[in-house]
Amino acid sequence: MRMYDIILKKREGGHLAPEEIRFVIEGYTKGEIPDYQMSAFLMAVFFRGMTDEETGVLTQAMAHSGDMVDLSEIQGVKVDKHSTGGVGDKTTLIVAPIAAACGCRVAKMSGRGLGHTGGTVDKMESIPGMRTSLSEKEFVEIVNRTGISVTGQSGNLAPADKKIYALRDVTATVESIPLIASSIMSKKLAAGSDCILLDVKAGNGAFMKTTADAVQLAKKMVAIGEQNGRKTAALITNMDYPLGNKIGNALEVQEAAATLRGMGPEDLTEVCLALAENMLFLAQKGTPAKCRAMAWDAICSGRALEKLAAMVEAQGGDPDYIFHPERFGEAPVKEDVAAPEEGYLQDMNTEGIGISAMMLGAGREKKEDAIDPLAGIVLCKKTGDYVKKGETLAVLYTSEESRLKDAEAKYFESVKIKGEKPKKEPLIYARVTKDGVEEKAD
Amino acid sequence: MRMYDIILKKREGGHLAPEEIRFVIEGYTKGEIPDYQMSAFLMAVFFRGMTDEETGVLTQAMAHSGDMVDLSEIQGVKVDKHSTGGVGDKTTLIVAPIAAACGCRVAKMSGRGLGHTGGTVDKMESIPGMRTSLSEKEFVEIVNRTGISVTGQSGNLAPADKKIYALRDVTATVESIPLIASSIMSKKLAAGSDCILLDVKAGNGAFMKTTADAVQLAKKMVAIGEQNGRKTAALITNMDYPLGNKIGNALEVQEAAATLRGMGPEDLTEVCLALAENMLFLAQKGTPAKCRAMAWDAICSGRALEKLAAMVEAQGGDPDYIFHPERFGEAPVKEDVAAPEEGYLQDMNTEGIGISAMMLGAGREKKEDAIDPLAGIVLCKKTGDYVKKGETLAVLYTSEESRLKDAEAKYFESVKIKGEKPKKEPLIYARVTKDGVEEKAD
Repeated sequence: MRMYDIILKKREGGHLAPEEIRFVIEGYTKGEIPDYQMSAFLMAVFFRGMTDEETGVLTQAMAHSGDMVDLSEIQGVKVDKHSTGGVGDKTTLIVAPIAAACGCRVAKMSGRGLGHTGGTVDKMESIPGMRTSLSEKEFVEIVNRTGISVTGQSGNLAPADKKIYALRDVTATVESIPLIASSIMSKKLAAGSDCILLDVKAGNGAFMKTTADAVQLAKKMVAIGEQNGRKTAALITNMDYPLGNKIGNALEVQEAAATLRGMGPEDLTEVCLALAENMLFLAQKGTPAKCRAMAWDAICSGRALEKLAAMVEAQGGDPDYIFHPERFGEAPVKEDVAAPEEGYLQDMNTEGIGISAMMLGAGREKKEDAIDPLAGIVLCKKTGDYVKKGETLAVLYTSEESRLKDAEAKYFESVKIKGEKPKKEPLIYARVTKDGVEEKAD
Repeated sequence: MRMYDIILKKREGGHLAPEEIRFVIEGYTKGEIPDYQMSAFLMAVFFRGMTDEETGVLTQAMAHSGDMVDLSEIQGVKVDKHSTGGVGDKTTLIVAPIAAACGCRVAKMSGRGLGHTGGTVDKMESIPGMRTSLSEKEFVEIVNRTGISVTGQSGNLAPADKKIYALRDVTATVESIPLIASSIMSKKLAAGSDCILLDVKAGNGAFMKTTADAVQLAKKMVAIGEQNGRKTAALITNMDYPLGNKIGNALEVQEAAATLRGMGPEDLTEVCLALAENMLFLAQKGTPAKCRAMAWDAICSGRALEKLAAMVEAQGGDPDYIFHPERFGEAPVKEDVAAPEEGYLQDMNTEGIGISAMMLGAGREKKEDAIDPLAGIVLCKKTGDYVKKGETLAVLYTSEESRLKDAEAKYFESVKIKGEKPKKEPLIYARVTKDGVEEKAD
């Protein structure tokens, strides 16, 4: 088998055989296939696509390129959850404890943030003492004891994906649905859970700008999960504005704790309840309505908040920060951003707001950058809200005053105030399962 | 400027600005742009194409990546000729002497053969003593003295093309009309002639399998030449069977000498007269009919043969081999291939026959392979000829008996004998100039 022939076959629109796909992934991971052939292949895939069958084999080959996490020693149904990434997306810190409080086992591997989106691992690390690099043994033990653990990805989880993603990132071959689907699902398959709920964001702050693209991606991922014996479903959720009101690491842990107390912002609470309901449904905890009620009860009873605190404690963090989030304190530099005119806030450029938060120190431009846990943005107004001239739109937080000016300019670039009230878009667009696409209309 | 953005722009079907194209070529030639970004870019060009303007800028940038040959010290009109490559294509050795005999100056750089096609430099080297690596000074001096010189390409002629071609060759990005056109024309522009006649082969032994593709390539190349102030035209010629009857290095020199004596095969003679007519027409030697008559007279008078001998002598070769081609002698191993049945010869797989000749030692599979100057094939029958069972179809020549069996099998694989007489295809399909496409029908 020759890589040249495989590139040519895909370039001409051919259907690759399983052994051809495995040859590509194994050869590239071992360094036998050079980057320049792989990038030409990836560009051909960008243009020609891949069938569900090809994508499934690709995903499996990538999953098996490194360690397959063994969760067999965890009793009960293991439920995983993945978000394609957005701004203000702290749902893992809310729905994982809810699912655990309802009897699921959540053994989740999370990533760090890059660019305009944050990562759960960074958020957790804003809690003093919290460890996010657990050994597999410790991880399994914590899940068995508390029902929940969230750790950083092990170095050898789907190394083929890591290597291919780094190449796609510099060769303009990221935006390909089969490549995105296989990248996400290879890590989910390797991470070992029985059920996988996907939160596919759609909108100007998401990777998928349109719901149609998000649905297409979700369908591919659900098909891959089901082909591999995992119960898989996806919700398509709105990322045309940030989720919740707080963006930044400690700020998002605070908002997650508030939401687990029933005092979170409406949009965040609603999305989290929908995600939790679907996680419980995948774990066969009952009808959707029953699962929704269970999730809500986990919040009202305080059991979900206790689950989050138990996980924090098990991973070396101080659980008092969960019960008393005011203990995080505030960043030394704080700036109110005032509305320059009266009208309705609209057309939030969510990516721009994420970048503004990054510029304040809440995120990384490059992988090596350090994070300021207290930096970020509290949004006082979001899309559809009416503001008077001079009213506070948002509060910016940072530890370095020098960061303020550019971040504020970026914030202003990212919001518009107009006379007309914008049309309200749904929070949840659709649900995708192996049985098809169910559109949601609020 | 970032290579990433340029890849993305082309991937999305955008039109690249001249400075973007120059950034790519200069950066890649200097090694500042890595192979993996270049190959992704080339694959995007494969799918999205390039406008005439983009292709023109690309060609210029590639031409200027190395030395631009200075032919200003050569008096008279310099006429170049390029063939896209075929099997049995010895036209340079015939038309260059004709053009020189008619008062043109032919200062031509030629390549070596690879795979199923031969190269003029290899053919010339079968003449004892013949030198094909001339200094620029010597090259110019020989053209001024004899009117003609053919030399190998200097190491620094369009180095960008050399580097890009090597990458395309291993990343399945060769078959792209703008990339093929810019590759050929960058070398032609750098080689410095005033007029360029292109022989674009079409058929199963050519790079372009269909006349439509060949016409498209010819149009692109003519546009590039004219944009750069070179009088440029192209003939689309038939490569559905080998040109002439002899394939191999010394064998082709023999056949070229015979053709310059007016004793060549009909197809080869006709194609050479058409090429020579068009070279003379580009050099403004008169009407097409007058140019054709001049070319024919150069053969009949023996002046063209003398020009070839003069060039051989000027480059250190023994001109007696041109006047007495029997001096080349015969390869030690010779095998007659007999027709297995009666009927018309048809559907010659020209590429297969070229590979059979290569297997006998006449060509190279890899760049490093040595060439056997006496190896090759003499075709006794070609497409459309009637053969009786047992009649000789071809004679195979080699210096190593061990090569015979596989080469013979390859030859048989490449010809078919059937009851019906095949339709005769034209030798010359079309002529492409800046004024348009003129179809030729015999």
